[in-house]
Amino acid sequence: MKVLKLQRRLSGDHDFKGHTILGSMCTEPHHLAKRTYRRFLSTNVGDPGLFPNLVALEQEYITGLGILLSNPEAIGSVVSGGSEANTLAMWSARNLASPEQREVIIAETHHFSFDKAADLLGFKLIKIPVDKNHKVDVHLVETAINNNTMAIVGIAGTTGTGVCDPISELSDLAIKYDVYLHVDAAFGGFVFPFLDNGPIFDFSLPGVKSITMDPHKMGRAVIQSGCIIYRNQVVANAVQIPVTYLSGGHATNNTIMGTRSGASIAAAWMVYNYLGFSGYKKGVSKVMNLTKWFVDQIESIPELDIIVKPELNIVGICSSGDVDIKSILSDIREKGWAVSEWSNYIRIVIMPHVTKGSLKKFLKDLKMIVKNN
Amino acid sequence: MKVLKLQRRLSGDHDFKGHTILGSMCTEPHHLAKRTYRRFLSTNVGDPGLFPNLVALEQEYITGLGILLSNPEAIGSVVSGGSEANTLAMWSARNLASPEQREVIIAETHHFSFDKAADLLGFKLIKIPVDKNHKVDVHLVETAINNNTMAIVGIAGTTGTGVCDPISELSDLAIKYDVYLHVDAAFGGFVFPFLDNGPIFDFSLPGVKSITMDPHKMGRAVIQSGCIIYRNQVVANAVQIPVTYLSGGHATNNTIMGTRSGASIAAAWMVYNYLGFSGYKKGVSKVMNLTKWFVDQIESIPELDIIVKPELNIVGICSSGDVDIKSILSDIREKGWAVSEWSNYIRIVIMPHVTKGSLKKFLKDLKMIVKNN
Repeated sequence: MKVLKLQRRLSGDHDFKGHTILGSMCTEPHHLAKRTYRRFLSTNVGDPGLFPNLVALEQEYITGLGILLSNPEAIGSVVSGGSEANTLAMWSARNLASPEQREVIIAETHHFSFDKAADLLGFKLIKIPVDKNHKVDVHLVETAINNNTMAIVGIAGTTGTGVCDPISELSDLAIKYDVYLHVDAAFGGFVFPFLDNGPIFDFSLPGVKSITMDPHKMGRAVIQSGCIIYRNQVVANAVQIPVTYLSGGHATNNTIMGTRSGASIAAAWMVYNYLGFSGYKKGVSKVMNLTKWFVDQIESIPELDIIVKPELNIVGICSSGDVDIKSILSDIREKGWAVSEWSNYIRIVIMPHVTKGSLKKFLKDLKMIVKNN
Repeated sequence: MKVLKLQRRLSGDHDFKGHTILGSMCTEPHHLAKRTYRRFLSTNVGDPGLFPNLVALEQEYITGLGILLSNPEAIGSVVSGGSEANTLAMWSARNLASPEQREVIIAETHHFSFDKAADLLGFKLIKIPVDKNHKVDVHLVETAINNNTMAIVGIAGTTGTGVCDPISELSDLAIKYDVYLHVDAAFGGFVFPFLDNGPIFDFSLPGVKSITMDPHKMGRAVIQSGCIIYRNQVVANAVQIPVTYLSGGHATNNTIMGTRSGASIAAAWMVYNYLGFSGYKKGVSKVMNLTKWFVDQIESIPELDIIVKPELNIVGICSSGDVDIKSILSDIREKGWAVSEWSNYIRIVIMPHVTKGSLKKFLKDLKMIVKNN
């Protein structure tokens, strides 16, 4: 009764099951992820001695992701999300750098978690313009490298357009100049490996020191779950805080969280093992096909265009000339659609909860609005 | 079936329902918290425009805690736990300080999250010895204050013994020297306000700028949920990162997490509203009575003593003379009991899941071990 009452009070909020959310990188978790999460709701791997089997499950999961990312030796943690994971990577990079190295080179299209990490950890972001394909300009990255460089960050699937920076070339630079390279694949990490001709962004590139990938985005797991995956122990151990008092015995800690949900791990592990490579591939194929269809629909509207050819299930809708995209955005939100606003385009993310039916309804509203604009 | 199989694989782990966990600050969440969490599992207040009612619920919850803490104007966030909350407080303090102010004065009994925050944010911890009551020595705190002081931290319920630092005197110092005072009440925050003669640690003390208190400890809510509560907008706004692209419209962000569980908020809100002041008082009274009984039992064992008179539901068991407490710890763990190890004592936390029956069994094992030591 009490839960129902709260549900009624919150009923004005959007709901992934309601098909109005077209601009989020989150989705309704896989049903098995939800069931697993519920079962292990009270577990805390922040006290590893109490839950040794869950801790082992976490490492098995990270090893599984490591294998997917061409590095069975990878180690890491399931943390609260991509923001914590990116912060942890920058923390390791900073601790491995010399005190004067406090510049991080990154595309201007980076996620705001790096702005937070910069303020938090005390480094400066050197923001590099992107080329016409919305990817970081590698030549400008090379020009920016100097003795103060602490790290380079490559983005495997930008938040704005979903394109992948040329990680292979960034890796070459990282090796050439002996600089830490982190890859933010928070979104792309659970998509690119399952594409037939996806870009290479993983540990097969020798410069890559750490990768962020989020089970709670395209991994179909439950919020909070993001992964920080380190190439090896040297990178992981750059942050190590001893904890001496836990009920299960001594431990060290290298996440921002202390108490840490075992349910997040169990749920992510479950869906990964249940779906497997073929299951994720099937899911990715479905959203990518829908994305292609949606792009065709947008391109058939004379007043609109797409901002860049999608590499992921992310579509940027811009004006092809005269229409005012801000006013279209405002009108389409008025109709109840939750879409993202970017500088000069509307971002649509075709997550697993998005159906062709809801996209058709959205397109109908969109066409009407454009006509009346 | 698949969840059951995983459950079997993890069955060697401890379980709050199994009554073997006597050394954790976590517990089995309240049944209503669990049900509420399950219902809102996929919500993300990191995109506040999608979930405006949940965001309003969060502020209502924080206001409720603010009222409990003598400050209806308090603002804040439900974050991943006490570690993130303490880090956020230190982040605000650092941003409000001048660049040369990079020393934080804190009792040597502090939680390790401050060691992490220090490395992360680039400040130095000035660790102050505690007096015979395990509380920070206020005179030594005053001696440590200088032009480089960034903040003082008071602990309302230390992790080790549960005692409360003299927060009122620390507040006087904070006012006298115009220094930021943060109170870590991660554990004590949901206990002290419900005691008849609990210590004052809240915003009624004018020096207190921020307080950490964790719903997922004695608040009976679900992991991950910790609260950072700021005195006012000035303190809260010391960290502000703009986010321009969200589906629900523009926002600013001042947590480490980006994607942030709405379920944590809903569950914490639900249990707080369901139990109310009287419900929490009843729960606190129950664990405190059990603690008193347990202390009497320990004191009746000649070879053992308690490390300090408990102010919270935390008991430190030490040797009264000859017995080797490390060997007793090892033997009691061997018997299946999950207890915490501290320098010279065993820590027991009488959380709501701990029953008198299980404590009796524990005492029986303990007496046997002491006898054979």
